[in-house]
Amino acid sequence: MPDALRHKHLLEAADLDLDDATLVLDTAAQIESALAGREVKKLPTLRGRTVVNLFFEDSTRTRISFELAAKRLSADVINFSAKGSSVSKGESLKDTALTLEAMGADGIVVRHSASGAPHRLATWVAGSVVNAGDGTHEHPTQALLDAFTIRKRLGRLEGVRVVITGDVLHSRVARSNVRLLHTLGAEVTLVAPPTLLPVGIGSWPVTVSYDLDAVLPTADVVMMLRVQAERMNASFFPSAREYSRRYGLDADRMARLADDAIVMHPGPMVRGMEIAADVADSARSTIVEQVGNGVSVRMAVLYLLLGGNA
Amino acid sequence: MPDALRHKHLLEAADLDLDDATLVLDTAAQIESALAGREVKKLPTLRGRTVVNLFFEDSTRTRISFELAAKRLSADVINFSAKGSSVSKGESLKDTALTLEAMGADGIVVRHSASGAPHRLATWVAGSVVNAGDGTHEHPTQALLDAFTIRKRLGRLEGVRVVITGDVLHSRVARSNVRLLHTLGAEVTLVAPPTLLPVGIGSWPVTVSYDLDAVLPTADVVMMLRVQAERMNASFFPSAREYSRRYGLDADRMARLADDAIVMHPGPMVRGMEIAADVADSARSTIVEQVGNGVSVRMAVLYLLLGGNA
Amino acid sequence: MPDALRHKHLLEAADLDLDDATLVLDTAAQIESALAGREVKKLPTLRGRTVVNLFFEDSTRTRISFELAAKRLSADVINFSAKGSSVSKGESLKDTALTLEAMGADGIVVRHSASGAPHRLATWVAGSVVNAGDGTHEHPTQALLDAFTIRKRLGRLEGVRVVITGDVLHSRVARSNVRLLHTLGAEVTLVAPPTLLPVGIGSWPVTVSYDLDAVLPTADVVMMLRVQAERMNASFFPSAREYSRRYGLDADRMARLADDAIVMHPGPMVRGMEIAADVADSARSTIVEQVGNGVSVRMAVLYLLLGGNA
Repeated sequence: MPDALRHKHLLEAADLDLDDATLVLDTAAQIESALAGREVKKLPTLRGRTVVNLFFEDSTRTRISFELAAKRLSADVINFSAKGSSVSKGESLKDTALTLEAMGADGIVVRHSASGAPHRLATWVAGSVVNAGDGTHEHPTQALLDAFTIRKRLGRLEGVRVVITGDVLHSRVARSNVRLLHTLGAEVTLVAPPTLLPVGIGSWPVTVSYDLDAVLPTADVVMMLRVQAERMNASFFPSAREYSRRYGLDADRMARLADDAIVMHPGPMVRGMEIAADVADSARSTIVEQVGNGVSVRMAVLYLLLGGNA
Repeated sequence: MPDALRHKHLLEAADLDLDDATLVLDTAAQIESALAGREVKKLPTLRGRTVVNLFFEDSTRTRISFELAAKRLSADVINFSAKGSSVSKGESLKDTALTLEAMGADGIVVRHSASGAPHRLATWVAGSVVNAGDGTHEHPTQALLDAFTIRKRLGRLEGVRVVITGDVLHSRVARSNVRLLHTLGAEVTLVAPPTLLPVGIGSWPVTVSYDLDAVLPTADVVMMLRVQAERMNASFFPSAREYSRRYGLDADRMARLADDAIVMHPGPMVRGMEIAADVADSARSTIVEQVGNGVSVRMAVLYLLLGGNA
Repeated sequence: MPDALRHKHLLEAADLDLDDATLVLDTAAQIESALAGREVKKLPTLRGRTVVNLFFEDSTRTRISFELAAKRLSADVINFSAKGSSVSKGESLKDTALTLEAMGADGIVVRHSASGAPHRLATWVAGSVVNAGDGTHEHPTQALLDAFTIRKRLGRLEGVRVVITGDVLHSRVARSNVRLLHTLGAEVTLVAPPTLLPVGIGSWPVTVSYDLDAVLPTADVVMMLRVQAERMNASFFPSAREYSRRYGLDADRMARLADDAIVMHPGPMVRGMEIAADVADSARSTIVEQVGNGVSVRMAVLYLLLGGNA
């Protein structure tokens, strides 16, 4: 097994082959073990390194997860919210990148509303770029934390049957999960209204279904996607009631799952819409666990990308 | 004397009995002594611990005070402003709490516009919750820093006569101070327009007066409450001029105080409204001292709540 | 040579005599050398010290530069954005200053829209104040990083011919550079439309020209000032096209420079307005280098102001 990732950046799930992805998950598990035995819950690995959280979209949850991951590796963290910054005075993404590079940023964690922005950023800087969500494109650390959660709960990823349900069309979480789960040997079924599936879905390594009830009995994992309120009244979107009735996960529907199947959600949830409150809070739900695993997996990614080039 | 607080959280002044409150004040004094003798003004106590400042209302002053307190104990600090966060995308307080819990927050310092929000938060998390001000309810660390300031200046709290003046109805500072000062043996008199006193004041352990001039000569401490501009034109509020004339503290009125009596204000002040500029800047005023004491008292609270469960 | 600055604060370029300015530049160079040889890119000098970034105007770039400088000296950093703070509830600058002082701020880095605000701040606090830009007045650390960049590239400052071009009237960068470069023995020529030169320019230690093409052949350095979009339609401002044609630096104009002359810009740039993209990205351009030098120079300033009074 390799001891470093193939790529200097983590821009999309396809950057990770099976060895890479397994390395990240194993490293996250080792970090958790190491910290469990310590009174001081920090590792000195990235002391003197600078990680910049460059967020062009608000995402407190993801920003905090990366901030904690970096701080627990003893890095210095700079939060850069593009609102009110020189970006809004007309500075280009390239000049922002060159500025952070010149200031000595060893890693840049970027969230951007434009698909592909992290890739462009990566061409301009010597440090490592981690995609923390770009438009409707990818969110690779979310897929890693989901895979980590599945492996922890079920003990394996190879052959695991994962049903991903909801607005696949606009979901970077779905895109990254489909790719990474396929790499890791899981079998993915997508369930969504036809208008919320992307053109070209035929080439994805997935099975497609329009009937959630039909696929639940054979699922090991059901992953619910967040409904984004700002899309609810668009023409391609079913009404809220219709959506919830056909694609929401309530207790009745959850009862169709096998005994050891689990329920996942990337958060933040809209309780009562895509997922019922009692489902979210049930013993099957890994939703809170996913959040904790997110910090571990992001520590692993920062460690593997930034730790070696001291 | 105990070496830990009775409660895991600090939600209101009533969480502190006489031993608890005295322990916090003594610990704050010990921390000040310890740091005075050091070149590096930090203690290693909370290294590896995470303190989250969860602020649903803006309060730069209180946030910075807690941030400094945590950093001087070597904790990692995460600032979470609810504006633009998933809270505004419909995430519930409970899900925010579970998220922070899952990320490993050892302490959550919460400011919220809804009275009782910190109490609810405390039911969902394993870490410690510190109320940094909730609605018109309580602000217990403000009361602790006020008590610490009085004890430093006057040498005692038992039997000290404290006059609290202003908009008691809407003041969480007044509520916490009345409770804590009573616990510590001080005698509190409230002075306010009748419309700015709460219903049920009869059951509070205080004396009520409508005449500031009459009570000043026997006071050891006069504590002025902030006038909140957004309430100034409400029907229950006197006009600004009338308020300032009857309940403001100017130099003439200050002259009625005993020689060693002190003047307090929780800040931020509206100079010229509830307090004249020359009063605020006089030798009697402890206003700036209160700010410094606030950091010490918050270090003591975080130390006592988070320091022992490593 | 002295080992401390003459002043406790850095409020304007005039605070620095030749010895002071040279000390800052030499210290910055020593810090760069020291860090280049270390695996952990931090110095322990300011451990336990608190630096507050008090920004009344947004400036992500300058704020991050100071934040990194302070963190690489191991100081604790507090970011205080005046937006939504008690400043907007009517608190005076003086009370904000006294609050930060009481909380134990050892250094306050202040950006303010009012010229002179840092000077007033400095009269109220015991800690050191660093002006990070005040109105149209001064931005002394920008001038220091510019001087540091020139000395690195050209090997000297004495006798170096610097052409500063653009909206001198509103530019604190120009004011600080004129003063500091003069102190360091450089010869400054200002080129600007007559309406964008300040009244009283006759008393500045500079030569004035209205013809950029004429002065370029003898320049060692050409420094382009940022065009502030919000001024573009004012009556004293040429049209954007006219401005760019007469005072912008494009490849043709750059060709008039001597072989080893350099092109500087304080950033953020408006590419295509005051500077063409290919000029900004050329080998002559020090624009990215200036950003990196900014962190080194600010480390030197914080070190010299805060390092000695432990």
